[in-house]
Amino acid sequence: MSLKNLETAKERRGEIEKKIDMKLSHIGNYSLNESIASSKNCENMIGISQIPMGIAGPLRINGLKIEKDLFIPLATTEGALVASVNRGCKAISLSGGANVNSFKVGVTRGPVFYTGSIEKSNKLFYWIKENDKKLSEIAKKTSSHLELLKVKIRTQGLYVFMRFYFDTQDAMGMNMATIATQELAQFIERKLGVECLSVAGNFDIDKKPAWINFINNRGHKAWSEVVLKKEILRSVLKTNAERFFEVWLTKCMIGSAMSGSLGFNAQYANIISAMFIATGQDPAHVVEGSMGMTTAKILKNGDLYVSVYLPSLMIGTVGGGTELETQKEALGIMGVAGSGKVEKFAKIIAAAVLAGEISLLASLSEGSLAKAHQRLGRIKK
Amino acid sequence: MSLKNLETAKERRGEIEKKIDMKLSHIGNYSLNESIASSKNCENMIGISQIPMGIAGPLRINGLKIEKDLFIPLATTEGALVASVNRGCKAISLSGGANVNSFKVGVTRGPVFYTGSIEKSNKLFYWIKENDKKLSEIAKKTSSHLELLKVKIRTQGLYVFMRFYFDTQDAMGMNMATIATQELAQFIERKLGVECLSVAGNFDIDKKPAWINFINNRGHKAWSEVVLKKEILRSVLKTNAERFFEVWLTKCMIGSAMSGSLGFNAQYANIISAMFIATGQDPAHVVEGSMGMTTAKILKNGDLYVSVYLPSLMIGTVGGGTELETQKEALGIMGVAGSGKVEKFAKIIAAAVLAGEISLLASLSEGSLAKAHQRLGRIKK
Amino acid sequence: MSLKNLETAKERRGEIEKKIDMKLSHIGNYSLNESIASSKNCENMIGISQIPMGIAGPLRINGLKIEKDLFIPLATTEGALVASVNRGCKAISLSGGANVNSFKVGVTRGPVFYTGSIEKSNKLFYWIKENDKKLSEIAKKTSSHLELLKVKIRTQGLYVFMRFYFDTQDAMGMNMATIATQELAQFIERKLGVECLSVAGNFDIDKKPAWINFINNRGHKAWSEVVLKKEILRSVLKTNAERFFEVWLTKCMIGSAMSGSLGFNAQYANIISAMFIATGQDPAHVVEGSMGMTTAKILKNGDLYVSVYLPSLMIGTVGGGTELETQKEALGIMGVAGSGKVEKFAKIIAAAVLAGEISLLASLSEGSLAKAHQRLGRIKK
Amino acid sequence: MSLKNLETAKERRGEIEKKIDMKLSHIGNYSLNESIASSKNCENMIGISQIPMGIAGPLRINGLKIEKDLFIPLATTEGALVASVNRGCKAISLSGGANVNSFKVGVTRGPVFYTGSIEKSNKLFYWIKENDKKLSEIAKKTSSHLELLKVKIRTQGLYVFMRFYFDTQDAMGMNMATIATQELAQFIERKLGVECLSVAGNFDIDKKPAWINFINNRGHKAWSEVVLKKEILRSVLKTNAERFFEVWLTKCMIGSAMSGSLGFNAQYANIISAMFIATGQDPAHVVEGSMGMTTAKILKNGDLYVSVYLPSLMIGTVGGGTELETQKEALGIMGVAGSGKVEKFAKIIAAAVLAGEISLLASLSEGSLAKAHQRLGRIKK
Repeated sequence: MSLKNLETAKERRGEIEKKIDMKLSHIGNYSLNESIASSKNCENMIGISQIPMGIAGPLRINGLKIEKDLFIPLATTEGALVASVNRGCKAISLSGGANVNSFKVGVTRGPVFYTGSIEKSNKLFYWIKENDKKLSEIAKKTSSHLELLKVKIRTQGLYVFMRFYFDTQDAMGMNMATIATQELAQFIERKLGVECLSVAGNFDIDKKPAWINFINNRGHKAWSEVVLKKEILRSVLKTNAERFFEVWLTKCMIGSAMSGSLGFNAQYANIISAMFIATGQDPAHVVEGSMGMTTAKILKNGDLYVSVYLPSLMIGTVGGGTELETQKEALGIMGVAGSGKVEKFAKIIAAAVLAGEISLLASLSEGSLAKAHQRLGRIKK
Repeated sequence: MSLKNLETAKERRGEIEKKIDMKLSHIGNYSLNESIASSKNCENMIGISQIPMGIAGPLRINGLKIEKDLFIPLATTEGALVASVNRGCKAISLSGGANVNSFKVGVTRGPVFYTGSIEKSNKLFYWIKENDKKLSEIAKKTSSHLELLKVKIRTQGLYVFMRFYFDTQDAMGMNMATIATQELAQFIERKLGVECLSVAGNFDIDKKPAWINFINNRGHKAWSEVVLKKEILRSVLKTNAERFFEVWLTKCMIGSAMSGSLGFNAQYANIISAMFIATGQDPAHVVEGSMGMTTAKILKNGDLYVSVYLPSLMIGTVGGGTELETQKEALGIMGVAGSGKVEKFAKIIAAAVLAGEISLLASLSEGSLAKAHQRLGRIKK
Repeated sequence: MSLKNLETAKERRGEIEKKIDMKLSHIGNYSLNESIASSKNCENMIGISQIPMGIAGPLRINGLKIEKDLFIPLATTEGALVASVNRGCKAISLSGGANVNSFKVGVTRGPVFYTGSIEKSNKLFYWIKENDKKLSEIAKKTSSHLELLKVKIRTQGLYVFMRFYFDTQDAMGMNMATIATQELAQFIERKLGVECLSVAGNFDIDKKPAWINFINNRGHKAWSEVVLKKEILRSVLKTNAERFFEVWLTKCMIGSAMSGSLGFNAQYANIISAMFIATGQDPAHVVEGSMGMTTAKILKNGDLYVSVYLPSLMIGTVGGGTELETQKEALGIMGVAGSGKVEKFAKIIAAAVLAGEISLLASLSEGSLAKAHQRLGRIKK
Repeated sequence: MSLKNLETAKERRGEIEKKIDMKLSHIGNYSLNESIASSKNCENMIGISQIPMGIAGPLRINGLKIEKDLFIPLATTEGALVASVNRGCKAISLSGGANVNSFKVGVTRGPVFYTGSIEKSNKLFYWIKENDKKLSEIAKKTSSHLELLKVKIRTQGLYVFMRFYFDTQDAMGMNMATIATQELAQFIERKLGVECLSVAGNFDIDKKPAWINFINNRGHKAWSEVVLKKEILRSVLKTNAERFFEVWLTKCMIGSAMSGSLGFNAQYANIISAMFIATGQDPAHVVEGSMGMTTAKILKNGDLYVSVYLPSLMIGTVGGGTELETQKEALGIMGVAGSGKVEKFAKIIAAAVLAGEISLLASLSEGSLAKAHQRLGRIKK
């Protein structure tokens, strides 16, 4: 019997259990609304994956309107991660809190066209530049939540690649952007007599590590910084500014450069993936979120300045996985569930990532990383 | 009251509920063994994140010993993903199945040393080359599941970066590798009088997109290929070889190259993240898994050859998140839970990634991507 | 005696001859105006390096106003290069000539500032956005040949990096741009109370292979294309469209991608360096000129479309090395010496690079590269 | 009349003069042996390009056997470059001289094969591993100056890419390597029944900026370092250790990283191109030579450690352009003309590059770069 004709996760699960002759008792244990999840988030649904969710914090962030203590939900199976972020939160909070900033760049989607010659590619280039208003109108019609911000165009002989930037309000917006791009591409096809080969031509570029997303940004860019007091470095982080700085310089900068890396950091991907899974973001966007740079500077009074820069955060507080029960609760923990919250969410992520950087770089600088793994997350010998 | 002194997830959840004045009724709904998860996988655990799990398949793979139908568990909140992989599985299976291959390169961990001069760095370089046996013994002592395979060394003035490759059997092995590297680093410090600045110097390089992992590999490398029959391209994939090829060439190759990408593919990250979350892999390793290249070639008889190459799969079938209840079941669905299964798992991932590539590239080539998103995963206007 | 106090190249050469006890009879043999060269192009001048100059062509380019036959001067010591370009010119010309296009992006120079905090960095960011007119005026005052086109700004914690784009008319303009940037940086320092750490902060980025110059361009970008007739492929290039296409695809696209390359081409650097040396360009800009992408497509009638795209051509037709005697003559050979010619020069370079690509890819596809080297440029056994 | 039938540069030059109606009086002024140059280095030779050659030094290098003062010949048209290197030489020499090291990695050439399937690709992979001795013999037969060192192989579906490393003694060796690779490829074709699509498949990769050459090296790798005394920083370089360090950190590391660069340095390409042109190296290899990393560290006594690392120097002291008159003299100035000198040459280049880095970073840190350009190399307003 085909899985497609079965209506509930339970039926499908039963069918699979029969086919593979194995009982799936845990995958079926959940509280979420199956009919919504199975129609909007996951076809052929047979149940759930349960990812342990821990909590780090409280984390003090300056300038954000946060009435209660701020806790960071982290869904992870990697022992030591929550403890690590937690320690970073403590060091930041005791040093006066993190400063944050963010900027909404817009989600990108970009078609590739076949024009047939450099001349026609050139014509298309200028036509797009001159018709930006018309294109904005067409995009607008596909959704009241979407706005076309700008277009980047590159000609490659008889192909033209575009990269549309859209403001999609509080949604991550990839789907909205795809639908709008489809409309735009069809309009361009009709007007210019060129052929759209693909609505997504990897000049977008989605879920691949790529310099264009680092250099020109995608989604949101966000920063966070803190000045770690000398005594906090010693008491909470068990290190000092000089050791921390040298690990940062050799690992995050020199080591990363020698590896051909787009990530000049210690562990952005760990915090990004744990927060993304907890809050219903698309976990494949960890790829973009793993890029970015940590900086450190020893100040004249011996305190240590540390900052993080995240060039491409693809996030939303409405739509997609954020509507699921546990995920919405996790957003709620940080006060960023629903509309009008996405910029705040970007800033909180940056501060949490900063906490992770501080904690791991401090651990490395005093040689305790392996010990932590030995104690907490160790596979049995 | 500090979260640290609370013993159960329920108590911590209660404490957080009070602090943020919000009920967390779903996060607490789960069947997993909390005492294990909270001690080995996630500190400060307050409950779980529930990720919908769907199933794709059956997927026919040639050469692997698979007694029953092979189904692919995918934990995702991205509507249309499971359906997309499912269609790819069908096209592959109807075309005779996927061929696969894999090779265990080894997990890498690498310290950075301060030597003080080029001369001393050079001396360290040759000392390592000459003492590989001694280093192997030291590594071996840290775990019976671990073996040192090789070392890559790069001098940068007064710093020396190393990249140890370890065979960690069926475990992903990052923790074991860290502990072994710690021992090796201490031994080198004692013998050479140099200082280990950090046990992990980003020449490893973990969870950052980096060329060294693409070019020299990390974890496992894996391949999969299929020859799609002309009639399958038409009936199942609604496209033809020429259109598919042109989308592949312009998107995966030309578009990716223009974007400075390390991923020359359509959607590796989607399949990797959904399988990693379902099976308890570290989802931050999606970063490595998003790299790689898809190729296509139109054969003389009009059939279409498609292949995928994954240069850096960081996976395990024992340890870490794979021991959790739903995750172990998901591995069990594919027959790869436990020891002696990791190579088979690598090959299955490659074939599943191939299914994802085929389906999405076909969709793009016939213009149906936006339609699929409109139908399945759409945010409400 | 110090070299500095000697006034002529002859005196310095004599001094060096004494110091190293060796006769330098060839380095002193030249016709150029020593007093100009030694004061404007080369300090401590002792003579010249003689680079053989060959000529390729005629090369037919459509759309450019070229009254006489167009020949390409190539200064090179690599046997087989001129012959290779020459063959490409012939194939292009017999196929109806090359089409070309170019766009002046502007030379970039960019300072790095220390602000002290994310907040101050943010303030600087918006101040620059709001004061673009004032900045343009300041830049304008430094030279009547220079205009500020745009600024790209990136904050990295307490550092702010800028990338100014300047139109420098027919000069390559790096020096003008540096002087203007110095003025701009001092103005910004005074107005904002921030400190300019360096007038050039590698966000410019000059003479290093870097994705920002590929993706966002620098200097000029240029394209050229040709449709190679089936019979020309056979008679002149000794290959056919299918073989050529497969070599292009595997070498320029797949092989380059696997190598982490910014050059998706066969030999741009060879043609760029030979033309740059011949015409007095800065040969260190071969680094930028080696980037770029060749495309190929088999047309329905069996003809072969080939194009090149050069994202970052740093060139001038006045100033610097272009004023030297042999260099000016070389520019004169192409009719592009002096003012008002730089766009034409960019287009000619693109067409010459196309000739080089066609010839080498054809050679590789029929297996004659090694034979050519064996015949022409071989070191004696 | 066709250029091909003309026998001397003078005749060709005359023919071109007629065709373009312009007198080429300087291009014809030279002392080199035209019959050799026109047959071995440059087809269709019409004369020469004269590049001013300046001299920097003396430069003190420790550990190298240099009997006389060491001077660095630099062929350049960029005003201020020789003066800049000269100042760096002085600072190094007064600080006790540069330390150097180098390692011959070998020139690479690599074919791409079509096998038809992953299985056949896999078979080819293991066949190469098992037949390394046989391959070495075949390579050896092509030249007594060449030896096959190792092979790196990567499978991409039905294609297999190889990267052969050859020791070519004192020659740069690209041509020898190509001829040997041709023989190897034909042998492999015969033995395995696979098809060599191209003798050079860009996994080599020649004259394109590419991470594989940075990470796995090509040609020679070389290092140089110096400890700059506090008083030299002040008196010769007009800066101090703190300012120098901050410019290095923000420009070479942070700025380069933000630009997606493979060069983490200030001006390697300038010194490399000037030395390459002076000494008859292939100037297109400036692309490889522009890669690399400068490091700096403030020592406890306030002195400043600076080092350079060049991962891919493609150089020779025999063959090709090194045999030409002025080029051979330039090699002679450094005592590295002829056999048995290439390692010494690599080390001298590294030390000269170090001189360039020190001088430019010092200039930037005290704000004098623009002034130097204004004084020395300025285009007339």
